[in-house]
Amino acid sequence: MANKKIVIVGGSDAGISAAFAARRTDRHADITVITKENGISRCAIPFVLGGQITGKTWMLENIPSLYKQSDIKLIMDEAISIDPNERLVRTNDSSFPYDSLIIATGAYPFVPPIPGRDLKGAFTVRTVEDTLQIKERLKTSKSVIIVGAGAIGIEIASALRARGGLEIKIVEMCDRILPTTFDSDLSRIIEDKLKDAGIEIITGVGVSELLGDEEVMAVRVGDREIPGDMVIFSIGVRPNTELAKNAGIEVGRLGIKTDDHMMTSIKDIYAIGDCAESVSLINGEPAASQLATAAVLQGKIAGKNVAGDDATFDGVLCSAIMKLEFFDIEIGRTGFTKEYAKTREMNVMARKTNSLTRSDDYPGAKRLDVELIFDIDSERLIGAQMIGEEGVAGRIDLVSLAIKLGAKISDLTRIKNCFNPPITPFPSDDALLVGIDYADRMIKRIKNRKRSTGSSGTPSK
Amino acid sequence: MANKKIVIVGGSDAGISAAFAARRTDRHADITVITKENGISRCAIPFVLGGQITGKTWMLENIPSLYKQSDIKLIMDEAISIDPNERLVRTNDSSFPYDSLIIATGAYPFVPPIPGRDLKGAFTVRTVEDTLQIKERLKTSKSVIIVGAGAIGIEIASALRARGGLEIKIVEMCDRILPTTFDSDLSRIIEDKLKDAGIEIITGVGVSELLGDEEVMAVRVGDREIPGDMVIFSIGVRPNTELAKNAGIEVGRLGIKTDDHMMTSIKDIYAIGDCAESVSLINGEPAASQLATAAVLQGKIAGKNVAGDDATFDGVLCSAIMKLEFFDIEIGRTGFTKEYAKTREMNVMARKTNSLTRSDDYPGAKRLDVELIFDIDSERLIGAQMIGEEGVAGRIDLVSLAIKLGAKISDLTRIKNCFNPPITPFPSDDALLVGIDYADRMIKRIKNRKRSTGSSGTPSK
Repeated sequence: MANKKIVIVGGSDAGISAAFAARRTDRHADITVITKENGISRCAIPFVLGGQITGKTWMLENIPSLYKQSDIKLIMDEAISIDPNERLVRTNDSSFPYDSLIIATGAYPFVPPIPGRDLKGAFTVRTVEDTLQIKERLKTSKSVIIVGAGAIGIEIASALRARGGLEIKIVEMCDRILPTTFDSDLSRIIEDKLKDAGIEIITGVGVSELLGDEEVMAVRVGDREIPGDMVIFSIGVRPNTELAKNAGIEVGRLGIKTDDHMMTSIKDIYAIGDCAESVSLINGEPAASQLATAAVLQGKIAGKNVAGDDATFDGVLCSAIMKLEFFDIEIGRTGFTKEYAKTREMNVMARKTNSLTRSDDYPGAKRLDVELIFDIDSERLIGAQMIGEEGVAGRIDLVSLAIKLGAKISDLTRIKNCFNPPITPFPSDDALLVGIDYADRMIKRIKNRKRSTGSSGTPSK
Repeated sequence: MANKKIVIVGGSDAGISAAFAARRTDRHADITVITKENGISRCAIPFVLGGQITGKTWMLENIPSLYKQSDIKLIMDEAISIDPNERLVRTNDSSFPYDSLIIATGAYPFVPPIPGRDLKGAFTVRTVEDTLQIKERLKTSKSVIIVGAGAIGIEIASALRARGGLEIKIVEMCDRILPTTFDSDLSRIIEDKLKDAGIEIITGVGVSELLGDEEVMAVRVGDREIPGDMVIFSIGVRPNTELAKNAGIEVGRLGIKTDDHMMTSIKDIYAIGDCAESVSLINGEPAASQLATAAVLQGKIAGKNVAGDDATFDGVLCSAIMKLEFFDIEIGRTGFTKEYAKTREMNVMARKTNSLTRSDDYPGAKRLDVELIFDIDSERLIGAQMIGEEGVAGRIDLVSLAIKLGAKISDLTRIKNCFNPPITPFPSDDALLVGIDYADRMIKRIKNRKRSTGSSGTPSK
């Protein structure tokens, strides 16, 4: 039997993960990666800009040699079309036959169609070139305007603040920062911290124009003109779906449609990472993850499947943690926000708690704020948001796993968090467990009331 | 209806937890705690001795006033008998009627019946008095001998090493340190660290005698005499079961027997914490937990149940983390060791992996060693052990939750650990996930081989 021909279009997190997973699963397959640019560890960018990361590992320059070691062929070229009938991927100069194809074309940064967007000194944050150019520009800049207060914008602002020597302003069209990933309870805490550190935050109004001749000199925000030596757009990304669309593959609002094997509407063609539409692990609705973690996992699953394994993806929770360098705090989140859940007409409650991160008598204990979102009908946690100087990542992973495994809140009251004074607070003091206990009591109370009165049990809050 | 009379015998972690849980569940119950000594945050002791904890919170002196606020009656006296027929607990001077009784009498430190064990300068580590006396003695001591290299012994040795100015020796009867909680792969790493720091470790031989006139001056270990100004016994604890036994309550090898509601063989009498025999969450066999986390949880469950709720305890994993102060490392463990699993004739494999704790290009990334134990037949993780400078607690909690919720290893390959360079390694590099992926591949390989050959699938390793 001839070796299986596997072609992967795209060479960033998803594509890389798929290539190696395919190789681990099938030692003999012919595996080809077609990509016009080398991969990049995108999560590193804020810290490269802030100067915390000084090495070059984030440019993933070692990937080509790792491909070579694993007998994966690398074609540095652009795939311009897919022919599903002939089972070919074409570049300008050549064509590549496949038995299975994986599309991992990623996403591109969105920039609003406003005057001045092409001025020198206005940047998006996506590629190695973007990063190096921003870094260069920072050397001569005294002020920077960040457009978009999502995770990336906030992370960059805080890494630049840690670097020092810059006036930093953030413009966000919504009425608060982190509008889609955090509820306002916690986003306000973060916003206050940024402001206390001297970062100006302008919310509730968008940037309508970039001003300057060749170089950007200011942005127009409402009726204000805000001067700045450079502008960084961090508004979000849009999936690269052209290649798939032109091949007749079904594309949804948030990206290329796939089934739980990551296979598209055309047999033997898969889509993974930022170009693919995900589904929510909580309610199965379409969801955009656009996180490296999901890309890597989808890559692993598609890579296994094209190589003969049978792996499935069960959806995204958009679990994420961020480090705000200047403040030395971690912020993390998973699942639905309260606000989003309400738009899905779920019967949810939220509970905000806080605790220390270690025993209160152990030196160096830090503060931890936790907000838990729980669904009264299913008696399950559906989301969590946290801010703390330590211990956030572990707790976000814990809540993520609990949601993923479908645990009821009553099960989670019995999480046996390990305890030791220098590392954790006493179990009954831990903000996460306090919140879970509250949720458990509330749910029992509501269910009892329902039983005894026949009412709907909807809380008044 | 008269208020329910709830009596709790014992005022440490388990008893305290039970009292407050009962109060939260029933606002009107008459709740009485009978204890001859105040509670203590026992996990703090190593750090009090080492000088890292300087406050007094660990003495829990605020508990009596918290009881008062919650309308819980505190009787500082010793319960000397239980009369299940009359439903009475007796002290020397008085008797207390109960509708429900919770026994939380704890455990006592074991000291081998060897000559010299009562010499001045020989200590056990259990109570506030023990701790204060050891602390006083340390002021004038130049050398200390720790007998028993379990978790407490190791933690004390390392906290004292961080304190400085002491010659420290550990004597352990088994052939290595941490013999019951860690497999040798990881315990050897810890042992080497302790030795490198100048702590002498003598294994494979017990202490047969304490030498000295009034004060201890040396211990006899095999044919050696080892000089020391003080001796700390940390060999383990035995449950206080006399009170229960004399009342006719069934007692097992590891403590007072209970059902999953924490109720003993006599109706309306419960037992919790160190005096109770637990069951293993993994195989349901009797298990000794003797950890504060289990005590608190059992207290919560019994407290709820005596107050009219219906809560169950599903067993222990003995999840624990320790901080080794001098080395600034965390060590953690959960579930069965490979060696223990083999004594239960389980078909297990172990995999040791390591990674960094952050992205390799982010400054300050530390090393993390992980050993995972998995059961081939059930395709489940049954244990984990870790050593690292950060990130251990979160990962131990994660594995504990996975075991508790009965996740198959194939499910765990899809843990979406959140990622950010300053906080975690890239998902595919994380020692925990690398180990899980290995386990998944091995299990699939073994099952495939079994299917194709009909062999038993037992690995040769």
